Amino acid sequence: MSAYQKLEDHFREIANFNHAIGILNWDNAAMMPSGSADVRARAMASLSVHIHNLSTDPHIPDWIVDTKNESLDQWQTANVREIERGFIMDAAIPADLVAALSKAASEGEQAWRTMREENNWQDFKPYLDEIFKLSREQGQALGAALDKSPYDALISIYQPGIETKDIDPIFADLKAFLPGVVQAAVQRQKSAGKSAAVPAGISIDKQRALGLTTMEILGFDFNRGRLDVSHHPFCGGAAGDIRITTRYDEDSFLDSLQGVIHETGHALYEQNRPQAYLDQPAGEAMGMAMHESQSLFMEMQLGRSAEFIEHLAPMIRQQLAPSANPSDEQWSSETLYAISTHVEPGLIRVHADECTYPAHVILRYEMEQKLVAGSMDVADIPEAWDASMQEMLGLSTAGDYKDGCMQDVHWPSAGVGYFPTYTLGAIAAAQLKAALRKDIPGVDGEIARGDLSSTKTWLRDKIWSQGSLYGMQELMARATGKTLDVNDFKNHLQQRYLD
Amino acid sequence: MSAYQKLEDHFREIANFNHAIGILNWDNAAMMPSGSADVRARAMASLSVHIHNLSTDPHIPDWIVDTKNESLDQWQTANVREIERGFIMDAAIPADLVAALSKAASEGEQAWRTMREENNWQDFKPYLDEIFKLSREQGQALGAALDKSPYDALISIYQPGIETKDIDPIFADLKAFLPGVVQAAVQRQKSAGKSAAVPAGISIDKQRALGLTTMEILGFDFNRGRLDVSHHPFCGGAAGDIRITTRYDEDSFLDSLQGVIHETGHALYEQNRPQAYLDQPAGEAMGMAMHESQSLFMEMQLGRSAEFIEHLAPMIRQQLAPSANPSDEQWSSETLYAISTHVEPGLIRVHADECTYPAHVILRYEMEQKLVAGSMDVADIPEAWDASMQEMLGLSTAGDYKDGCMQDVHWPSAGVGYFPTYTLGAIAAAQLKAALRKDIPGVDGEIARGDLSSTKTWLRDKIWSQGSLYGMQELMARATGKTLDVNDFKNHLQQRYLD
Repeated sequence: MSAYQKLEDHFREIANFNHAIGILNWDNAAMMPSGSADVRARAMASLSVHIHNLSTDPHIPDWIVDTKNESLDQWQTANVREIERGFIMDAAIPADLVAALSKAASEGEQAWRTMREENNWQDFKPYLDEIFKLSREQGQALGAALDKSPYDALISIYQPGIETKDIDPIFADLKAFLPGVVQAAVQRQKSAGKSAAVPAGISIDKQRALGLTTMEILGFDFNRGRLDVSHHPFCGGAAGDIRITTRYDEDSFLDSLQGVIHETGHALYEQNRPQAYLDQPAGEAMGMAMHESQSLFMEMQLGRSAEFIEHLAPMIRQQLAPSANPSDEQWSSETLYAISTHVEPGLIRVHADECTYPAHVILRYEMEQKLVAGSMDVADIPEAWDASMQEMLGLSTAGDYKDGCMQDVHWPSAGVGYFPTYTLGAIAAAQLKAALRKDIPGVDGEIARGDLSSTKTWLRDKIWSQGSLYGMQELMARATGKTLDVNDFKNHLQQRYLD
Repeated sequence: MSAYQKLEDHFREIANFNHAIGILNWDNAAMMPSGSADVRARAMASLSVHIHNLSTDPHIPDWIVDTKNESLDQWQTANVREIERGFIMDAAIPADLVAALSKAASEGEQAWRTMREENNWQDFKPYLDEIFKLSREQGQALGAALDKSPYDALISIYQPGIETKDIDPIFADLKAFLPGVVQAAVQRQKSAGKSAAVPAGISIDKQRALGLTTMEILGFDFNRGRLDVSHHPFCGGAAGDIRITTRYDEDSFLDSLQGVIHETGHALYEQNRPQAYLDQPAGEAMGMAMHESQSLFMEMQLGRSAEFIEHLAPMIRQQLAPSANPSDEQWSSETLYAISTHVEPGLIRVHADECTYPAHVILRYEMEQKLVAGSMDVADIPEAWDASMQEMLGLSTAGDYKDGCMQDVHWPSAGVGYFPTYTLGAIAAAQLKAALRKDIPGVDGEIARGDLSSTKTWLRDKIWSQGSLYGMQELMARATGKTLDVNDFKNHLQQRYLD
């Protein structure tokens, strides 16, 4: 057996155990009875340790060396490259730091669940101290192995191939550009008169049926996937069995629907990864920023576009209010579009519109860098948070930890370096939409008719089927003719909110 | 660390992987999208191989020897005994036979699913040839290690501590006793006039709510369990997270309800196993016959008793037909009791009543013995099946393979030696009920009031909390004052169907 074949078999074995982890994680959030958390946690720990042992198997580097004498095609070469990258990262972190991070993340997340509700910063702070201390060590160890700064090394866990030197100019540009957009959009909304309200009292059964119809329009493969309910919506499951979740509120059906469209974007990427490499590192999605570009493409670029809403509005009315008059204004595409593009600075990142969202990300990005570099203390977070919110969105979080620096699960669960991927994803989504429009001039008309076939073929060719064959910058350049570029995102906001 | 502690840790690790297997099996039957069977099968294979490797770890016999010098309490001693028994059985089967059995079972089950529908014995027969050839080898290998005959060795996979020498006299007794009971019961039904029909057109939502209420009355712990839907009802999940399933037919709600009561019986055993040994062999249920005794206790001894139906009937009417007149005869306890105790010889084991069920089991038991001994060929099964059905139930299966010798999944999935546990369970259930009545003279009145507290306390003390501390015969003797004895079952049938 060739060394390459041994590597493939080994990573297929790892994928089989990751299948169990993926389905159990889904079950945990969507199905598991609450009292069973203890036995589940023990099972997950055993599975994780086993996967870690397989991932750091000392045969791997030998096999990698041996493949250098073998004749590999483009995909196999990319697979060895991704395997090597993963192995270097896994091997860079000492076992006791892995264990300490896992323990701190688990305890931090648990503390966050109760203390956030209580607005209890004092008792929460020691958990963040520990997390940032360990994340710094993690960044240093990874950085030494990858020849990167500690914070760049942390970013590369979530999005390989992107560093602060790529992000800094983009975020600086947005920081200067966005306040004007937000101000003008809010002003325009004001002069347009009082804002419309979402029709209330829509039963969960009807909302679920609408979600399923919409997933079908977007091309979700129900033969290899499901829609369920969980407290925090997500796209999970396992390769070849992709499961998304949503949550329902009878008085805001649009939140659930937009969430379903967002998660379907993630799901389409997962369901259309290259089938021959589904269980190999080369077949994986190209990082979390690219993943977010697909969910935001579906949610923001497509789902909230005037064109798609034109198609969606009559269908929504028929499904949710079959007896409503077709000319009833509250179900019109104009009303749905106005609600879907409402801009309003707020304290909470996950509720933010696309114009104010980057401010939330930039705030966290700037703070993470300092916290990892050691030039800022955890104790200084609340004050810095308040100052930054005042500066960027004109809102104060003084004394409000719950809706301020304690609102996100990322830091307490040791997800340092993740935040920039949200805005990088939004930028990539706008860039892909602009390129799609250039490649297929009639695409807006197709979308308005609910015909997504050429859009999906384009995304499948350019992104989904490419797995990790190329790094993010090369993938974007091949798809759009240029590496990540903030201008299409700025043009998109300009056109949607100001023109 | 003591050798005993090493054993406990090792089997806790095995339990963690069994957790994944259990939840994935449940997901497979209740949740998984149909197209994902391929990725699931690969994940299950990797998990099974890993568990097999852990179960046959060569350290185990050394640790077992070392515990002989350690001071162990009664439970720890039982745990080492059960670990040793399992290890001997696992180690007795050569790896290539394990793989061949697994492959034959998987292929046999798949063939069965399509060929049964087609009544296609000719193409199905080669699969059974292979299964019985391998089962014979398995029985010989196991028998050599356990000093048992091959068929006794196969039985011990499902119910340790019971052999053909225990079963033969019991089944001979029933074979002589049952035809008279069946004949008399059928005669009595005839003279009572036309049989009542189950109220039809009951929505699945209502049936599900009734099932949940009934599970609550029986004491199912929803904090550590669920009720879902699957094609074949079962009790599964994992230790500490027990999940049962049922299926619904709007025109026969009683089938679903009785199925729920049956599976709840299994679930109560699983949920009330000794908590300190939940993940250890000593804490497991004492074999499949004892497990079936608990499901049949709930379904047959309790669920179909005149007393419990007296309590259930008004509740069923209120939940399923809230506007029905309380004196409406079709919802009366008399009608429900008559339907629940209807006797009628039929071709299908899983639809059989408790008077005719043993005939189906005895037929298979007698045939398995000959097939494993090699004194009968697979080719002769259909003719022998027909002859045995004619002799015991007066029905012919000539040419009808689908509802004859191809009706069960057990043989094609290599479950040879399982069938006797059904009737041994029915006998044990009757024996336990008789002992309960002797120990708690007022228990029938309590049951008629829907008060199951002393019944459940008794079962918990006598059976559920005992795990595998004792073998089946000693467990029964401690609970009822005698080893397995068919007389209480005969008395039960006599009283319910003839007196």
